[in-house]
Amino acid sequence: MTRVVVVGAGFAGLNAAKALANRPGIDVTLLDRSNHHLFQPLLYQVATAALSPADISAPVRSILRRARNVQVLMAEAQHIDLAARRVDTDIGRFEADYLLIGAGATHAYFGHDAWEAMAPGLKTLPQATAVRARILRAFEQAECCADWVEQQAWLSFVVVGGGPTGVEMAGAIAEMSRFTLARDFRRIDPRKARVLLVEAGPRLLPAFGERSAARARRDLAALGVDVRLGAAVTDVANDSVTVGASRVPTRTVIWAAGVRASPLAQSLGVPLDRAGRVPVNAGLTPEGHACVFVLGDLAATIDPATRRPLPGVAQVAIQQGRYAAACILADQRGAPRGIFRYRDKGQMATIGRQRAICEIGGFKFGGRLAWWLWLLVHILGLTGFRSRASVMLQWGWSFFTYGRGARLIVGRDS
Amino acid sequence: MTRVVVVGAGFAGLNAAKALANRPGIDVTLLDRSNHHLFQPLLYQVATAALSPADISAPVRSILRRARNVQVLMAEAQHIDLAARRVDTDIGRFEADYLLIGAGATHAYFGHDAWEAMAPGLKTLPQATAVRARILRAFEQAECCADWVEQQAWLSFVVVGGGPTGVEMAGAIAEMSRFTLARDFRRIDPRKARVLLVEAGPRLLPAFGERSAARARRDLAALGVDVRLGAAVTDVANDSVTVGASRVPTRTVIWAAGVRASPLAQSLGVPLDRAGRVPVNAGLTPEGHACVFVLGDLAATIDPATRRPLPGVAQVAIQQGRYAAACILADQRGAPRGIFRYRDKGQMATIGRQRAICEIGGFKFGGRLAWWLWLLVHILGLTGFRSRASVMLQWGWSFFTYGRGARLIVGRDS
Repeated sequence: MTRVVVVGAGFAGLNAAKALANRPGIDVTLLDRSNHHLFQPLLYQVATAALSPADISAPVRSILRRARNVQVLMAEAQHIDLAARRVDTDIGRFEADYLLIGAGATHAYFGHDAWEAMAPGLKTLPQATAVRARILRAFEQAECCADWVEQQAWLSFVVVGGGPTGVEMAGAIAEMSRFTLARDFRRIDPRKARVLLVEAGPRLLPAFGERSAARARRDLAALGVDVRLGAAVTDVANDSVTVGASRVPTRTVIWAAGVRASPLAQSLGVPLDRAGRVPVNAGLTPEGHACVFVLGDLAATIDPATRRPLPGVAQVAIQQGRYAAACILADQRGAPRGIFRYRDKGQMATIGRQRAICEIGGFKFGGRLAWWLWLLVHILGLTGFRSRASVMLQWGWSFFTYGRGARLIVGRDS
Repeated sequence: MTRVVVVGAGFAGLNAAKALANRPGIDVTLLDRSNHHLFQPLLYQVATAALSPADISAPVRSILRRARNVQVLMAEAQHIDLAARRVDTDIGRFEADYLLIGAGATHAYFGHDAWEAMAPGLKTLPQATAVRARILRAFEQAECCADWVEQQAWLSFVVVGGGPTGVEMAGAIAEMSRFTLARDFRRIDPRKARVLLVEAGPRLLPAFGERSAARARRDLAALGVDVRLGAAVTDVANDSVTVGASRVPTRTVIWAAGVRASPLAQSLGVPLDRAGRVPVNAGLTPEGHACVFVLGDLAATIDPATRRPLPGVAQVAIQQGRYAAACILADQRGAPRGIFRYRDKGQMATIGRQRAICEIGGFKFGGRLAWWLWLLVHILGLTGFRSRASVMLQWGWSFFTYGRGARLIVGRDS
């Protein structure tokens, strides 16, 4: 019996386990520190009160119910011994013939870890509900605030980072303030909320083409988002953000700027790249460890076609998970493995209602069609009928009413 | 302008504000420490992973959007001066011509406050998601537990209190383990989970008739719930509950036994009853304070028809809120107030799938019809189209698949 241990039930780990499901002679143990698989591309919609956590997540063991050779365990990996193919977790030690590591990434504050408390990132469900509570609470605070200057600080929202998450967050906050909340307050006018999107580089969405990025910038401007390019954040405080030399009073900062591989990578004992990722060869294994696959955001992979690093997106992780499973099955048959080739299915980002950008193969387009395609792709990407139906219901309701169904501040009111 | 200050946006406060909406000459300030109105009768469904928090709650200011004379503020009342009709909160002082207090209730541990950490109650959303995480985590822990005795403790669930909440929780946990989780685990058989319902009194559901209570007990037994009557909990520890003289090893205890009025009542400076509630006269005002109404679970009200205390249910609070609003409007017209008369619309409780008990007027019945009626009443009771549609979708999906859509452990995995 070949023992496969998979660390992380993200897109990579889950798809590897699915591809190994019910294969004879293979025994899979899938470890994750939470009990659910999270559809991260829609996490910003939880953070902006459009969806509930349960809409974009599903219990891992329920997804793999019919995979009789897969054992799902809720465990946090603490240390990995590459040579021994051994994982130490909070519930014990796991030894493997094949080790698949897809522990994901977290946010990077470029040496300013103290900023995290003021400027939370958006990688997990608790972070998303915390960000949601912060945004909603800011409007509540502005409503009961007597001092005009303080009120303006509560009504200023700063999103740091001009990648897809930053663009989508800024667009969603602007839309929420312009439409959803517009008539709900008595003293303040939420439509006057200021949304600032700060990007240190020269343009938004570096992974997209120039035209798409320019379109996204126009769409954001139409929603009233103030986009600042070439503007680096130099300080984050409790009541302000400093962008370059100018201090912006604000009470709500959302961090979507840097990504850093899970700290678990440090336990592997191999040299890591600048973002803490594990360099792997064209077979997705660290040099000298042919039975260890490093997948998804944890791996630094160079695309042999473009010679550029692969982006940290769901499609890369999904394809890598399936590739690792295929390699194990090839080994089992005594067949050669072949190298990993990323099939780029394109990329898309949405900027508020009926506005999105798509780049699929040679086609680059935006606007209404792109938005509807974005909806379709994301609904199909969700796990299971219930999530799809629930998200369609919430989106359908929002489309016609401009409402957001999950406007909940919970957590500090118990 | 008559200034009305309402403390609490539960069933009483929200319905009072609705009844005063857009009435000339009346200005309402509605204070609540959270931003949402919670449909408490379905809270146990959040705790048992059937529904999401957003399904059973709606933003108070959104519900009252069209009530132009109502100002909703998120504030926690800290002290109330009855004579001055003055409320001190964390955001400042509010003075009123009429004061409506519906601050609700919390759980009572009968002098054993230390039990709360081990045996959480079920009154707020954070409590419900915490209970949900505990129940789901218990199965996860049992799955990765090598020791048989410890495993059995993780698979034992004790619900304390045989009122509607306790009965519904015990039924839902049993159903979840028998159906939803049955095929998801490899090492444990969730169907063998033990669910114990402990009630100190001689019977379940004292507010219901003998026959209904007996039926509920049979239905619980059919689901495999072990019901212990006349059994008082004498100790709660981290790994066990002591019932009478016998120690039951368990890791999950849910408290549904006692109710105590909000501690805010203590600030009023009037004598309270044993459960910490404020005694009020037939006009729902504390003696000598005709412009202060105490409503819902905070009030000790004697029903003039039956001479028994009114139960702590949503219908009582809703009718009391409307009554208080009607009194204010009567005063405005110079008309006499009239006394509060509770119109008992009946009561119901559900015990798992297609099993419920109903008592409406003289009709007492159970089984499938009661269950469908229960569904209908609770869907209609929810606020707004979105919640109703979402709950119908989740329930419909659960009905056909036995699934539970919100099987999320969040909060400790960030």
